[in-house]
Amino acid sequence: MSIRIGRSTVAMQNAVSISAFAAVGGKKEGDGPYGSCFDYIDTDDYFGQDSFEHAESAMQGLALQNAIEKRGAEPEDISLMLGGDLLNQCIGTSFGIKDFEIPFLGIYGACSTMSEGLALAALLTDSGASKLSAVITSSHFCTAERQYRFPLEYGGQRTPTSQWTATASGALIVEQGSKPPFIRSVTIGTIEDKGIKDANNMGAAMAPAAYSTISRFFKDTGYKPSDFDAIVTGDLGNVGSRLLCELSERDGLDLRQKHLDCGRMIFDQKSQDVHAGGSGCGCAASMLCGYFLPEIKAGRLKNILFAATGALLSPTSSQQGMSIPGISHLAWISNEKGEI
Amino acid sequence: MSIRIGRSTVAMQNAVSISAFAAVGGKKEGDGPYGSCFDYIDTDDYFGQDSFEHAESAMQGLALQNAIEKRGAEPEDISLMLGGDLLNQCIGTSFGIKDFEIPFLGIYGACSTMSEGLALAALLTDSGASKLSAVITSSHFCTAERQYRFPLEYGGQRTPTSQWTATASGALIVEQGSKPPFIRSVTIGTIEDKGIKDANNMGAAMAPAAYSTISRFFKDTGYKPSDFDAIVTGDLGNVGSRLLCELSERDGLDLRQKHLDCGRMIFDQKSQDVHAGGSGCGCAASMLCGYFLPEIKAGRLKNILFAATGALLSPTSSQQGMSIPGISHLAWISNEKGEI
Repeated sequence: MSIRIGRSTVAMQNAVSISAFAAVGGKKEGDGPYGSCFDYIDTDDYFGQDSFEHAESAMQGLALQNAIEKRGAEPEDISLMLGGDLLNQCIGTSFGIKDFEIPFLGIYGACSTMSEGLALAALLTDSGASKLSAVITSSHFCTAERQYRFPLEYGGQRTPTSQWTATASGALIVEQGSKPPFIRSVTIGTIEDKGIKDANNMGAAMAPAAYSTISRFFKDTGYKPSDFDAIVTGDLGNVGSRLLCELSERDGLDLRQKHLDCGRMIFDQKSQDVHAGGSGCGCAASMLCGYFLPEIKAGRLKNILFAATGALLSPTSSQQGMSIPGISHLAWISNEKGEI
Repeated sequence: MSIRIGRSTVAMQNAVSISAFAAVGGKKEGDGPYGSCFDYIDTDDYFGQDSFEHAESAMQGLALQNAIEKRGAEPEDISLMLGGDLLNQCIGTSFGIKDFEIPFLGIYGACSTMSEGLALAALLTDSGASKLSAVITSSHFCTAERQYRFPLEYGGQRTPTSQWTATASGALIVEQGSKPPFIRSVTIGTIEDKGIKDANNMGAAMAPAAYSTISRFFKDTGYKPSDFDAIVTGDLGNVGSRLLCELSERDGLDLRQKHLDCGRMIFDQKSQDVHAGGSGCGCAASMLCGYFLPEIKAGRLKNILFAATGALLSPTSSQQGMSIPGISHLAWISNEKGEI
């Protein structure tokens, strides 16, 4: 039986390992400070396809293929796959992974998708419902921009709080095993809505969700920020990261020394003109698979909390004057098995 | 530990019960042959809101509230909720359920969403990761029509193979318990794509997925169609239902005596002008929660296979000339606990 701790946290009963992982990215991501962490960088962001939507699917296929190969497995060895993306009806994923013929559960958590998939894969693998579980997600600057904002050709001016959707995909394999990284626990988030309506300020919309889930983890488990090497959020960017630390501080939780945000890391903010930072499902996913998991595997990081965040808006909801609810799920990823 | 059977089926180890369920619908659904099965029918499909999107969210809120009340629980008693809908970025669900403050995992399986949620809720409840799990989904004719097809005011002519999106929502609660209906096993589907490109013929696009998952269940478990009172699909409609039976027959699997399709049941095909039948996440969800689960609870049905199907297209993928992949997940729902 799984071990429920508090309202929202579940600890693994078995050693649940992330046995393989891969990150794929576009040119701008390759030029960024973590460019060398990607398994593959495309030169023109088309990934050999004739539309950006097909490119996003191809990127997912590449990341998944790469992760499966690194595991030394075949697609038919994978019991279950969890995945989704930002495109309407998650077509990036459906078309990207359909030819692998793996039992598939589509998930939608906006930019929290990698956290959500990781949480579900961990729980279903811990219980034995799945032996080898794959998780995949992606985002593509060009598909997101034209779907959520403006036609690419329009060249709309971006506001200071806006973030740059990463063209990237991350894929990983979860199974019971004895090699790190291990998933020690997962914390499932609630939808948080503080009434932010500015669709160009996703960081502010998502910060309350990150705060809610991270503080919930500490309440549920009794741990404190200093017990971890890093507390990693997905794509809060500069604005959301500042808000997260402020919200936490009011609660007596000092995250400042430990907090890292993939959206602040993936691009060079001085030279790459991304305003408040990077964003997109692929941002947190590729930083997790390309940087954090290798660091944990090598023992350079021992324990991190990984809490990607998603903004649950659509152009329709924003045009109808609705606020932007956010959500965040958290996984404790560790170099050691151990009890929670 | 969960009990994996074959490639895609997992049997419950514990008695996993669907302890409460509720169905909510619009006027046309209320006028249909199963109108009396709904817990609430709205008179103008606005559910007291000022847009159809808000109406869809309100409908989900109503269904969820109803299911939680029938269980004699409060929102804070629910460990985990799984839900999604057809709207871009699943805003029907995000806005419909956010105020309940329940840990939430968004899922996307198009019209297979109720099956997907049921499968995940069953697995996570069986393992103890969740105590009380809620599943919710919906569809609304007016939101789907203007998002996927034409502005409502346009009055586009509908083709003979097209289906009518049900305005309906179904919500249910899953927990370990000793009262029927029980979920005995779940089978996770793969994405199936036979190259159908006609977005007005979803039944044909989804039939191969239903066939794949249903035949996979029989292969995995060794059961045969005659062991069940009904084999229920979600919204294949007239065209897809015929194709499912034909595909199965080629494989030596005679479904004709047992097959029922929620899309063929929810509307009166003689008087309600729905062409090939009903469709939408809410179609299968409301027929499950309003009709099939009460029948199983009362013992009038002993064992059914419930396999809702989803078409994984978007207007963008269709406009780019892509085919329509389908997916279907299956749950064996029974009046008796029993081993698989």
